[in-house]
Amino acid sequence: MTRSPHFETNELTRVRRQPPRASYDRQLAYAIIDEALVATVAFAQGGGPFAIPMTVGRWNDSVVLHAARSSRFAKVLGSGASVCITVALVDGLVLARSAMHHSLNYRSVVIFGKATEVTAKAEKLEALRALVDHVLAGRSEGCRVPNDSELKATSVFLIPLEQVSIKRRTGGPLDDSDDLQLPYWAGEIPLRQVPLAPRADPLHPPVNPDPPAYMR
Amino acid sequence: MTRSPHFETNELTRVRRQPPRASYDRQLAYAIIDEALVATVAFAQGGGPFAIPMTVGRWNDSVVLHAARSSRFAKVLGSGASVCITVALVDGLVLARSAMHHSLNYRSVVIFGKATEVTAKAEKLEALRALVDHVLAGRSEGCRVPNDSELKATSVFLIPLEQVSIKRRTGGPLDDSDDLQLPYWAGEIPLRQVPLAPRADPLHPPVNPDPPAYMR
Repeated sequence: MTRSPHFETNELTRVRRQPPRASYDRQLAYAIIDEALVATVAFAQGGGPFAIPMTVGRWNDSVVLHAARSSRFAKVLGSGASVCITVALVDGLVLARSAMHHSLNYRSVVIFGKATEVTAKAEKLEALRALVDHVLAGRSEGCRVPNDSELKATSVFLIPLEQVSIKRRTGGPLDDSDDLQLPYWAGEIPLRQVPLAPRADPLHPPVNPDPPAYMR
Repeated sequence: MTRSPHFETNELTRVRRQPPRASYDRQLAYAIIDEALVATVAFAQGGGPFAIPMTVGRWNDSVVLHAARSSRFAKVLGSGASVCITVALVDGLVLARSAMHHSLNYRSVVIFGKATEVTAKAEKLEALRALVDHVLAGRSEGCRVPNDSELKATSVFLIPLEQVSIKRRTGGPLDDSDDLQLPYWAGEIPLRQVPLAPRADPLHPPVNPDPPAYMR
């Protein structure tokens, strides 16, 4: 099925604050999700909100989540409850001359939907492979695939990327014109998440200690 | 009032999955919140979950959030709705010999509560100052303080740090003993968020271009 390059908006997904920072571009959303390591998954429980940070992946046009089959979270997702999944990447600190115009540069995605459990073995293996490769591209070829008892103990869920909005900010501060001559420094401090040198398993050093090509 | 060094747990906050990774230590929670730039704030709306990534701060024993007074979010918080606030810091990728033991090293905090709006001017200024200094320690002394019309247009909320849980993981992979001889590299790739060189406001270069001491 061919997906529209832009998400249709509805009452849930239409960004109301600062609409110029909104986007509904499918490929941009995919890129942000692919860069994020953690999502927050929110659901309503007993009338109140409940939210959990967790690892996230993308498989084709869906977000992939996984959980121990015996967990409360797997029960909630398996029940077809509505979820709201957020990811947010911080790209920089925006320092304005005035306190109230301080901001962050960021890219965030908010996804609404309901989960479908993946039960067919081949699909489940593919979705779990996507989760491993999400953490580190190529890694799924460099580890043992899940066995039957692991598959049985794990629930895998897909949430379709259909009700989605993006918000992002880039660039320097936007000060009021009256403030431009104030003596304060103004600009951006960009932030980057960087990998440090790999540390081999200290308890059980790997048989082959050389980090593989996909880690370089 | 003296706060207990450990949060009391209840049905909402008691961590059920992997309890050895849980903590209810107040100072640890404060340190994680202080390091986080973004939180996800979840609330229930029309029976479903709604969550928004936003800037976060801490003022004494409360989380500080702010929003345009006219926003939906300010109305929700001002109505006394229950919220669930999460912050998550990713410290490393954990690469195990088996796909299912891949993990992240992380520190996360989940906070339940209801917001109280800060209305007294002096308190509001203090809470906003805490938000600015949260982004960059010392910055509140290096910018213009909010004026009356800015204060009027902005709602500031405190959520008490009382119903709080922490979860975190550190260290290398935890592979099954049967997998230890597999030929795959196993260990951790630590991640750090680092600042790049500051970029002065490109549209309106600061009168004094030298970055101040608190940016070094």
